[in-house]
Parts: sequence; structure tokens; C-alpha cells
Amino acid sequence: MNTTTADPLFDTDFMKEMLRQVRALDSYGIHDGKNAETLLAPFILNKEARAAIPIIGDPDPVTLSRVRAFYNALAVLIEKECGQMAVPLVHLSNEGFGRVLITVGKLVVLDRPLRDAHRFGFESFSKMKTEADKQLGVAIEIVGRYAEVAGL
Amino acid sequence: MNTTTADPLFDTDFMKEMLRQVRALDSYGIHDGKNAETLLAPFILNKEARAAIPIIGDPDPVTLSRVRAFYNALAVLIEKECGQMAVPLVHLSNEGFGRVLITVGKLVVLDRPLRDAHRFGFESFSKMKTEADKQLGVAIEIVGRYAEVAGL
Repeated sequence: MNTTTADPLFDTDFMKEMLRQVRALDSYGIHDGKNAETLLAPFILNKEARAAIPIIGDPDPVTLSRVRAFYNALAVLIEKECGQMAVPLVHLSNEGFGRVLITVGKLVVLDRPLRDAHRFGFESFSKMKTEADKQLGVAIEIVGRYAEVAGL
Repeated sequence: MNTTTADPLFDTDFMKEMLRQVRALDSYGIHDGKNAETLLAPFILNKEARAAIPIIGDPDPVTLSRVRAFYNALAVLIEKECGQMAVPLVHLSNEGFGRVLITVGKLVVLDRPLRDAHRFGFESFSKMKTEADKQLGVAIEIVGRYAEVAGL
């Protein structure tokens, strides 16, 4: 079976980690043998697809697991880059509102509000990667600047 | 109706804030007119009472609201003392396990694991106050030491 894709984007650390996160959720191996593009496809939502998802009630567990996969992957990359444990915390209160934190030691390296978590997704794979890179850059910069607090 | 108690413990900032938090949960005023001791009584659990609570499944919302009230009160006191916003985050994953964070700026001033949240409570009012004071002291100390990060 073809489990590789031609796109070099999928060879980046971030996309590989995303794939690992998604595969980790597949306890029964029902997605075995599928390629990266197919497995990560649910992360891609264009404007129309996004608008079609109702934002009533709490997001379903599958959507939530995607939000977690994304921030877990980010935390893994932060950890790799700075060599210290990065702990992600995805907290949803109600109706898709919440807060995402990643901490390294006593330092908050990422702190984002979550809104409309039902519609969590990106325009394209490259936009997902760009967003991750941006957040990773900010996190690594702040760890470098406040190394003492990150080491607590 | 007698809404005051003789115990000077209830005149402390922390106990006053706890009372405020508990009253804030009472949307329909069903506990109006009750004194502090009665309102805060559910926070006190002796060994036997604690052991009698089963730790199966997720803690009920009333128990959770007590966990939140305690850490909200702590955050309010931290805020009062250091003059900066302190944000509490009580995150329960499953079966009463979770994590409590209080952040000031980019600084984590309190980070505790939650275990058996079903049995959240203290031996006595004075033990509750002592525990809060201890955590408040640690939080204020760390804000003082890393004022720059707390100010971010």
C-alpha cells in the first residue's frame, strides 16, 4: 500500500508529528495503510466546509481529539527544540469556548483562547504548517529569553 | 437572620472571598441569610466522610464548583496582593483526575495535580485557611522573583 505522499511538506518534523498524533488515536488500526494526506484530511476545512458545521452545543469528541492532536504535536516540537518538557493543556468550558496552554517549567510558552472549536481546521496543509511554525517560533523565543523560569 | 459567626477565622480575606465565591454560585438565592459556617460547611470533610464518597466516574458538578470556588478565591487573593490579573484554570480530564493552574502574565504561579476530585475538602476551616495561605505565599514569592515574566 502506498503510505507516502509526494508533497515534501509531509517530510517536515511538524507534519510527521501530526501524523504520529493521529495514528496514536487509531487504537484499532482501522486507518492502517492510509497515507498522510488521507489521515490528516479532516484538519483541512475551507470556508464553505467551516460554515456548514453548526456551532451548537459542545464539540464532539472526534473534533476535540483533533484540537488536542494539533497542540500535542506543537508541544512535542517545542520539547524537541528546547530540550525541556512541554505540557499541553486543552481546556474547553462550553459551547466550543476554551483556552489552550503549553507550559515549560513555570513558563507559559503558548496561551490561546479557543473559539468555535467545532470548526477547528485550516485552509490548507501549508497554512496549518505555517501556523504551527509561527507558534513554535514564538514559544522557542520566549523559552530562550526566560530560560530560568522555563527551567523551574 | 444571623449571617455572622463568632469565629475570627471568618473575618480573614481568604474566608471572606470563599464566601463571596460560594454566594456567587447561588443564582436563585436559596442560601440567602445562611451564615458563613453553614455555607462553607460542604468544604469540610473528615476522614470518614471522605472515605464514604465513591470515586467512580466523573465528579458531579456541585463538587466541581467547590474545587473552582477554592482556586478562584486563591486567584483573587493573588491578584489583590500582586496587583496583576491572576487566571485560574481547573482542568478535569476523567475520573476526578486533572490539573489546576493559576497564571499571572506568562508565569505559572500555581500548578497542582488534582486527584480524587470527588473527595475535595479539608479537615477543618483552619486547615483550609492554612493550605490557602501556604499556596498564596508560594505564588506571591514567585511573582516577586520573576516580576518581568509575570508582567508579560
